[in-house]
Amino acid sequence: MHQQHVFAGFLERLAGEARAAIMPHFRSSFSVENKLEGGFDPVTIADRAGETAMRKLINAEYPEHGILGEEHGSENLDAEHVWVLDPIDGTRAFITGLPTWGTLIGLTTNGKPSLGMMAQPYVGEFYAGDCKTAWYQGPLGTKTLQTRPCASLAEAVMFTTTPFLFKGAEREAYDAVERETRLARYGTDCYGYCMVAAGQADLVVESGLQPYDVVALAPIVEGAGGVMTTWTGGSPANGGQIVASGDPRLHDIVLKKLASISA
Amino acid sequence: MHQQHVFAGFLERLAGEARAAIMPHFRSSFSVENKLEGGFDPVTIADRAGETAMRKLINAEYPEHGILGEEHGSENLDAEHVWVLDPIDGTRAFITGLPTWGTLIGLTTNGKPSLGMMAQPYVGEFYAGDCKTAWYQGPLGTKTLQTRPCASLAEAVMFTTTPFLFKGAEREAYDAVERETRLARYGTDCYGYCMVAAGQADLVVESGLQPYDVVALAPIVEGAGGVMTTWTGGSPANGGQIVASGDPRLHDIVLKKLASISA
Repeated sequence: MHQQHVFAGFLERLAGEARAAIMPHFRSSFSVENKLEGGFDPVTIADRAGETAMRKLINAEYPEHGILGEEHGSENLDAEHVWVLDPIDGTRAFITGLPTWGTLIGLTTNGKPSLGMMAQPYVGEFYAGDCKTAWYQGPLGTKTLQTRPCASLAEAVMFTTTPFLFKGAEREAYDAVERETRLARYGTDCYGYCMVAAGQADLVVESGLQPYDVVALAPIVEGAGGVMTTWTGGSPANGGQIVASGDPRLHDIVLKKLASISA
Repeated sequence: MHQQHVFAGFLERLAGEARAAIMPHFRSSFSVENKLEGGFDPVTIADRAGETAMRKLINAEYPEHGILGEEHGSENLDAEHVWVLDPIDGTRAFITGLPTWGTLIGLTTNGKPSLGMMAQPYVGEFYAGDCKTAWYQGPLGTKTLQTRPCASLAEAVMFTTTPFLFKGAEREAYDAVERETRLARYGTDCYGYCMVAAGQADLVVESGLQPYDVVALAPIVEGAGGVMTTWTGGSPANGGQIVASGDPRLHDIVLKKLASISA
């Protein structure tokens, strides 16, 4: 296990807190009628409980750190270290019982994504990175994550959550990229970025993302040898239009193609 | 664990053989360049090895049974009991590292699907059924599978592998169904049917399926309280155009809608 980043071990503690809060609600309707619990659906309850649990641990251990969460807003955002949390990325996977959602735990240091983890507690696996290296622990043991070479769209396997993310010229640009790929898969959410980091796929193209969708993932993709930027090559820290590529050569090709159509 | 069906225990032995043959090839390119192994891609090798392993066990234990497999053809198909095997259903999930593929092991008795299992060895879970009951074993323990009520398309969560399965009038009919659903997800393969059986989703609509895509799944869906037929209400045993519904009332609605457009 790589532990160079001073907070890498803390990621696992946060993931453990989130797991304990979330898992009672995953497939909670297994064998019973799907009911609202106290007026909220199970995923909303699980999302809030997961974030509350992580915030409590951060506040106890690092009260000087900031926190940006999907469910409970922000605190102390001008701190050197800010945790960026999404307890359940892939809400639709979660509510349909699929194992491709994840708990996203990111850290920005002086505004830049510096450390991140995607934890999938049903499978019992996590993917983590600190921009310099990336690692996996799960059913296949403990492994270093490394992207694979892919120098052209014709060889590329691409993920996106859904083509309906894209509107107007943005959709045309996305379609132009997808048409040239070897294979495109939808509905992958955070899991797709981790498969790029693991050398199982080459590209993710998305839009409309929030900071808590991306801050945890950029250090994993980059730590595994990939590149993750906005469509115009900027920092992914604020979300928006995002491209993640396993091979920097592919990243250049995709940014040029997107720019030529959506600009 | 439900063991009423005389061959239910044998399902687990077959799944164990398939797991041992397949798993060395799943994410085998983890951290290494994606290479062809002996001229074949890893999924083809894994598929063949998984089927060979299951055939060997069936031939040893039940030499009088027939076998229909995706990779190695058929033998003794006029036997009372015929095993119908698909070592890796969800090839695209497999090659992109996603945990939503499965090993399908079905049994027809006098031509009718009577017993089936979907095993997901990376996650360590399986879903099985014998048309009368259905059961799960995995990270959440051992559970009886039961579909959930859903009496209208407006409430329904639907899965399909991809809308591109459908051509012409068939696509129009599919789209008419999808438009009325609450949520549609793509890329689920066998996992979608198991989520219907587990009460996590309501509907799967597909086309162009083979017997080895469906024989294992029908006893699970039906054992959990659902219905699985062709688009015209016939036996699903031969594949083709398939609908699986958790609630028989929803099944009637979907068949009528499909018939009104695709007929």
